[in-house]
Amino acid sequence: MEGSREQVTGIDDLPVRDELRGKSPYGAPQLDVPVRLNTNENPYPLPEALVERIAERVREAARNLNRYPDRDVVELRTELAKYLTKTGNHRVGVENVWAANGSNEVIQQLLQTFGGPGRTAIGFEPSYSMHALIARGTGTGWISGPRHEDFTIDLAAAQRWIAENKPDVVFITTPNNPTGNAVPPETVLALYEAAQTAKPSMVIVDEAYIEFSHGDSLLPLLEGRPNLVVSRTMSKAFGAAGLRLGYLAAHPAVVDAVQLVRLPYHLSAVTQATALAALEHTDTLLGYVEQLKGERDRLVGELRAIGYEVVESDANFVQFGRFEGEGGSHAAWQKILDRGVLVRDNGIPGWLRVSAGTPKENDAFLDAVRELLGFVGDTPTPPKEQSA
Amino acid sequence: MEGSREQVTGIDDLPVRDELRGKSPYGAPQLDVPVRLNTNENPYPLPEALVERIAERVREAARNLNRYPDRDVVELRTELAKYLTKTGNHRVGVENVWAANGSNEVIQQLLQTFGGPGRTAIGFEPSYSMHALIARGTGTGWISGPRHEDFTIDLAAAQRWIAENKPDVVFITTPNNPTGNAVPPETVLALYEAAQTAKPSMVIVDEAYIEFSHGDSLLPLLEGRPNLVVSRTMSKAFGAAGLRLGYLAAHPAVVDAVQLVRLPYHLSAVTQATALAALEHTDTLLGYVEQLKGERDRLVGELRAIGYEVVESDANFVQFGRFEGEGGSHAAWQKILDRGVLVRDNGIPGWLRVSAGTPKENDAFLDAVRELLGFVGDTPTPPKEQSA
Repeated sequence: MEGSREQVTGIDDLPVRDELRGKSPYGAPQLDVPVRLNTNENPYPLPEALVERIAERVREAARNLNRYPDRDVVELRTELAKYLTKTGNHRVGVENVWAANGSNEVIQQLLQTFGGPGRTAIGFEPSYSMHALIARGTGTGWISGPRHEDFTIDLAAAQRWIAENKPDVVFITTPNNPTGNAVPPETVLALYEAAQTAKPSMVIVDEAYIEFSHGDSLLPLLEGRPNLVVSRTMSKAFGAAGLRLGYLAAHPAVVDAVQLVRLPYHLSAVTQATALAALEHTDTLLGYVEQLKGERDRLVGELRAIGYEVVESDANFVQFGRFEGEGGSHAAWQKILDRGVLVRDNGIPGWLRVSAGTPKENDAFLDAVRELLGFVGDTPTPPKEQSA
Repeated sequence: MEGSREQVTGIDDLPVRDELRGKSPYGAPQLDVPVRLNTNENPYPLPEALVERIAERVREAARNLNRYPDRDVVELRTELAKYLTKTGNHRVGVENVWAANGSNEVIQQLLQTFGGPGRTAIGFEPSYSMHALIARGTGTGWISGPRHEDFTIDLAAAQRWIAENKPDVVFITTPNNPTGNAVPPETVLALYEAAQTAKPSMVIVDEAYIEFSHGDSLLPLLEGRPNLVVSRTMSKAFGAAGLRLGYLAAHPAVVDAVQLVRLPYHLSAVTQATALAALEHTDTLLGYVEQLKGERDRLVGELRAIGYEVVESDANFVQFGRFEGEGGSHAAWQKILDRGVLVRDNGIPGWLRVSAGTPKENDAFLDAVRELLGFVGDTPTPPKEQSA
């Protein structure tokens, strides 16, 4: 389509917004390697009975595909509410639930509603990097809040930052990504109080990985707190990253409010049908979650036995280090990749993140990092007989 | 979830953005009536062979649903490019195409990239009302540009407005919704030139209904014009409103640029699989389009024969009027609904819009508006023998 006389036109030749100039799209490298443990995917494919049920429900939806989907997503929100009520120790109704294309779109809608130009959001970093990126995409100012050296939130400093900066939106990711640690409920409550005193502002608790936690969901905190939102996803616990189904639970007024900015008919009939099928198989899928929790705990234990430092994990991934030798964590990432295992370098100096895979994948990973230790810093290579 | 002591909390009790206060969500009433001709849906369900093919491709995708979908949507973009090349009289490659959840999301991404806070967009109204709403949702200022009384774009005034307001984005909907008329290529070219002189700014040609047009797509205008974008949808011609698949064709730099704001993995594996299945059945679906064009032409002819004023239509809908009597177009809308036929009141005084349905649905509509004429203004009731 480009004529031969035409100069090569790039992004910066277009009238893009200034803050986008020189930027790169977000996303982990999608490399074709034997063991992919870099994006916190669930390693277990959906059971065949569920695959068939998806085909069946999508076939049914396809017969009506010439019509717009249910704009208000009532059936799916009802089933998500039942799931939350069953697993979250708190009654949630359809009026408390909203769903969108991945929790990213849920967060985008929340920032379009409660953030946006002239407003700010705070997150405690390192955390899920899309919070800051979606803030940028919605014109919301971003404040990078403090954590301790051990990656727990520095509550006293956080309260001070909230009081001083008066952000409109506060993000709390628990369990946190990429570090894996959960935030204690009393910390969340204290941050909520600080945010209400300062502004009041909305507090978004991102529970994308909550099903893998040793502790409970913070859903019961919604009681009497209309400015609190809990966001969730089917990508991890439901083994459905390919489905792109995120949702939130909150006061009904929040559900009403996001509908002012949601694109009409945002959630396709095939997405709704597939998610409904997956929710019929909740018990089986939560069984896989239990297996993954066991594997996650094994990763933590074995990494420590090898000699790595590991952050306590309540998620389906583990952050480990430290790589302070030549090249730091990026060099270590490459060396693990050279052994056929893809993990994630989130740009946190000294640390890498590995997703819990199948037992065999985790063995391959552990073998790779055992070999690696000889190359890194001055930590001694562990004796061979420690190998699993 | 709401405690009994709690006051009833509404949207305005939350810290929502000021410009959202008092607003209502966009969307046509979803009413359960025998004949729904209000949202420009394709009345023909997908053929059963395609329904089966969708089930098959989704089953295949579901087996890998625990993994994130192809973030760059390469296979689908390739097939969309082939479709455009085949039907658009212009070579389009995968590097020229981008896809998202409905053309609404395509437009949202374009406004996040080229519009946004401190920038403005212009559209010539009445037109597709989501352009203005998505502008609001992305913090883009909105300028309502001029049309003539007959709903054609007032080119001289439009050029003047562009020169004076220097908008960052110019929307041209052709065929226009809700009026149905196409914009001549020379008008589009003149507006493009005006926009380049003024700023330069991006020009988005919204061709959601182009397959129903008597004329050709404006894809060939992309040649040598990197600031031009053509947006499309599978909702109408492909009979897949429930799928939510919109796409654009443009210079490769535009495709690169929107990836700076797109949410990663925005397009689910089931959406990609379903769209690919539909593209395999393009010829059959375009056959339905031919039938609908015939019905659309029949609606125009019969409405005029009855005595209505009708805007020339290149879309799968017809704007008709005028309703200047008691209650105006809204009263007429209600009376047509009382006869079991749902049409669209877009808030344009004196006019209503009807989507082309099946021959039987269109007959029901024509019967309803024939009866109606007696009630409206001072136009005489036509003799009974004119009825089809």
